[in-house]
Amino acid sequence: MVWAAFDADGPPGAPSSGAVVPDRTACVIAVGSELLTPFRLDTNSLAITERLNAIGYDIRLKLVVGDDVEELTRVLTDAVRMVDLVMCTGGLGPTEDDITREAVSRAFDLPLEVDEAIVERIRSRFARRGMRMPEINRRQAMVPRGASLVENANGTAPGLWIERGGVPVVLLPGPPREMTPMLEGIVRDRLAAGSSGAGLFRRVMKITGRTESDIDATAQPIYGRWAMGDVPIATTILAIMGQIELHLTASARNRAEADAALEAAVEELRSALGAAVYSVDGRPLEAVVGDLLRSRGLRIAVAESCTGGLLMSRLTDVPGSSDYVERGVVCYSNQAKTEWVDVPAALIDAHGAVSEPVARALADGIRSRARTEVGIGVTGIAGPGGGTPDKPVGTVVIAVVVGNQANVRTLNFVGGREQVKYQSAQAAMNMLRLMLLAGER
Amino acid sequence: MVWAAFDADGPPGAPSSGAVVPDRTACVIAVGSELLTPFRLDTNSLAITERLNAIGYDIRLKLVVGDDVEELTRVLTDAVRMVDLVMCTGGLGPTEDDITREAVSRAFDLPLEVDEAIVERIRSRFARRGMRMPEINRRQAMVPRGASLVENANGTAPGLWIERGGVPVVLLPGPPREMTPMLEGIVRDRLAAGSSGAGLFRRVMKITGRTESDIDATAQPIYGRWAMGDVPIATTILAIMGQIELHLTASARNRAEADAALEAAVEELRSALGAAVYSVDGRPLEAVVGDLLRSRGLRIAVAESCTGGLLMSRLTDVPGSSDYVERGVVCYSNQAKTEWVDVPAALIDAHGAVSEPVARALADGIRSRARTEVGIGVTGIAGPGGGTPDKPVGTVVIAVVVGNQANVRTLNFVGGREQVKYQSAQAAMNMLRLMLLAGER
Repeated sequence: MVWAAFDADGPPGAPSSGAVVPDRTACVIAVGSELLTPFRLDTNSLAITERLNAIGYDIRLKLVVGDDVEELTRVLTDAVRMVDLVMCTGGLGPTEDDITREAVSRAFDLPLEVDEAIVERIRSRFARRGMRMPEINRRQAMVPRGASLVENANGTAPGLWIERGGVPVVLLPGPPREMTPMLEGIVRDRLAAGSSGAGLFRRVMKITGRTESDIDATAQPIYGRWAMGDVPIATTILAIMGQIELHLTASARNRAEADAALEAAVEELRSALGAAVYSVDGRPLEAVVGDLLRSRGLRIAVAESCTGGLLMSRLTDVPGSSDYVERGVVCYSNQAKTEWVDVPAALIDAHGAVSEPVARALADGIRSRARTEVGIGVTGIAGPGGGTPDKPVGTVVIAVVVGNQANVRTLNFVGGREQVKYQSAQAAMNMLRLMLLAGER
Repeated sequence: MVWAAFDADGPPGAPSSGAVVPDRTACVIAVGSELLTPFRLDTNSLAITERLNAIGYDIRLKLVVGDDVEELTRVLTDAVRMVDLVMCTGGLGPTEDDITREAVSRAFDLPLEVDEAIVERIRSRFARRGMRMPEINRRQAMVPRGASLVENANGTAPGLWIERGGVPVVLLPGPPREMTPMLEGIVRDRLAAGSSGAGLFRRVMKITGRTESDIDATAQPIYGRWAMGDVPIATTILAIMGQIELHLTASARNRAEADAALEAAVEELRSALGAAVYSVDGRPLEAVVGDLLRSRGLRIAVAESCTGGLLMSRLTDVPGSSDYVERGVVCYSNQAKTEWVDVPAALIDAHGAVSEPVARALADGIRSRARTEVGIGVTGIAGPGGGTPDKPVGTVVIAVVVGNQANVRTLNFVGGREQVKYQSAQAAMNMLRLMLLAGER
């Protein structure tokens, strides 16, 4: 779970300078009235953007249109005049609400004709499941004259490819499970062919344990130079609760050129930012920590209070984590702390449950009970209740013990209950990561 | 964490029949090149849609435009010709990439003028933090002639309100923390005034423990009648991993009429669907279960294996859950099961760790150790490894014990590791909910 900082007025994702690419433009249209309610967002456009950027298309505009044939007709008519490619998802189902075929027919003055070969294919798809094709599904075999088909391996609606004045208009179904493989096929087999190989290529660096402004102060003088380089790289900084992401976008003549430039850029930033960078290959923190534990043959046990199981849950989100996760306890009550992790009641009385001695005792206790090399103790005030002037909501104490090394920190987080839990789990895993890395040297 | 079924070709969210409302149309524009990358979605439009629907605006179109003054100028020029209201977010920051003011100036031929009162306000905002206003921030005080201001309590960029041929064009900043309160103020103080009170009003019903087709078979004959009623209600069914949502949208002459119709509709569906409906007020399952535990004065303890702490983490996501959550243990290893929850090693040997006797022993053991009224045991195979022909990945056994009542079930879930964990936690909480409700009768 992440909470974006939504710095929507931040720097743009694409380079504004002397880039040779992208040299072609595209527009993405999502069709469906449900995408105009407060409940749903068009997410297909993210995958489409990524794939099209990599073959040199700049996305100029994204639109969401309801199941309204006149509106979509107008939008399509405009779109082919403005861009070099129109990608349209949704509205290819069998019901009357599915108006994409009809809108294309109207916009480009192409009569709709039933393709009996498609009818047959849909009919046999139903037959394979022992069902009769409902008559309504014949609608999905309606094809604007001159369109070519895009096969759909995961559903009944074929995709359609129409050209209008040299501009391809590609119609794909809305469900991502159907849309994504069709998109990949089209990019590979039809669109990449017209591409020079140039495009936008990306890397994501994940960083934790430092603030956004701190990271930017170090990183900006470095990435600031890249915008004007031979292979321009645009860099965006994104603050997400508990971590910072740097998004690097190279505008390159081909993938190999981009890979080389991005590799060098990532390495330059990594040396400047040091161990704060935990991932350059997309792995989440729990996977990075898991790999470190596995490679060192260490096993871990956890005693959590305020994180309420989230730390264990994240550690065990990683496939194969049973290799190194031995056990965990959520000791919400003081009794549980004493009975299960041997935290002396007198220690809690003397310092309070949220204190460095108690966090340390939790880590030591769980480690000794579970006979593991690594123990973590987390105690704090997740809120909204329970804060005091001394220990306000968001106060969290974390102890990490690895063999005979221990690290205990008192931290203060802002945000609601779930954010405090998330940031605490993040901080605990990062403390462990840094200790394991330091142990190497 | 939820996994939408993305039935993007499903039924539309708004009624298609004899509705008296909505009677006005709106278009939502999000500005920012970062929203045209694979990393970010415009989420502001969801809140805008909800608020505008409730005062009778139908959202006809949503657009995302980059930091491109010509493109935005064109989009704005078109938009005011098509709809009764244009809502635009983003692009009001202080940098050169922030082009919304300039585009409005060009689209409507209104010169930009610096408003010294705004400069003063921004300057004093910086001063309060002991900082000098950077000169670049003067850009945020540029106002198209004739625009009125919308105060921004949480940032430097004021919002702007321009009218063009009777169509309001409202410009709000992109960060939701700034945008949302400004939106609410505008809707309340300016837009609702022109409203007849008519609009689209919504309810969400949350259901678990039954399949989508099963729910729809019961619900469709009921909600099918509503589309043509005096107060038409459109119903959409949305399958999310581990639960089903029914979204009811009433098109009503005023809020009171909508409330009455929706109340009756929810009750009708609730009687038909029975206890499978767990929430009609937005509460998540963990909060529903928490309220049941609290009202009965019961305390809970949990022994989880394959859910890895997720069940405890969700139970403790609820503020005040320390009132009824006593402790939890994640016993990944068999040793932990034996040492901490007294599951006899012989029982594990005889039946396997993933078995009904072991789940029951986990629930009994944790309940007795923690001296709570309620105990839950969860054991299963979250995958991707660990499956056998007998017990494939997704096999999960859950035992819930409440006083002298026990319920043990073996379930089979599909999906990846995180989905199996989520559905298991969902099923465990739902079994407890149903037992607590049955105990009432």
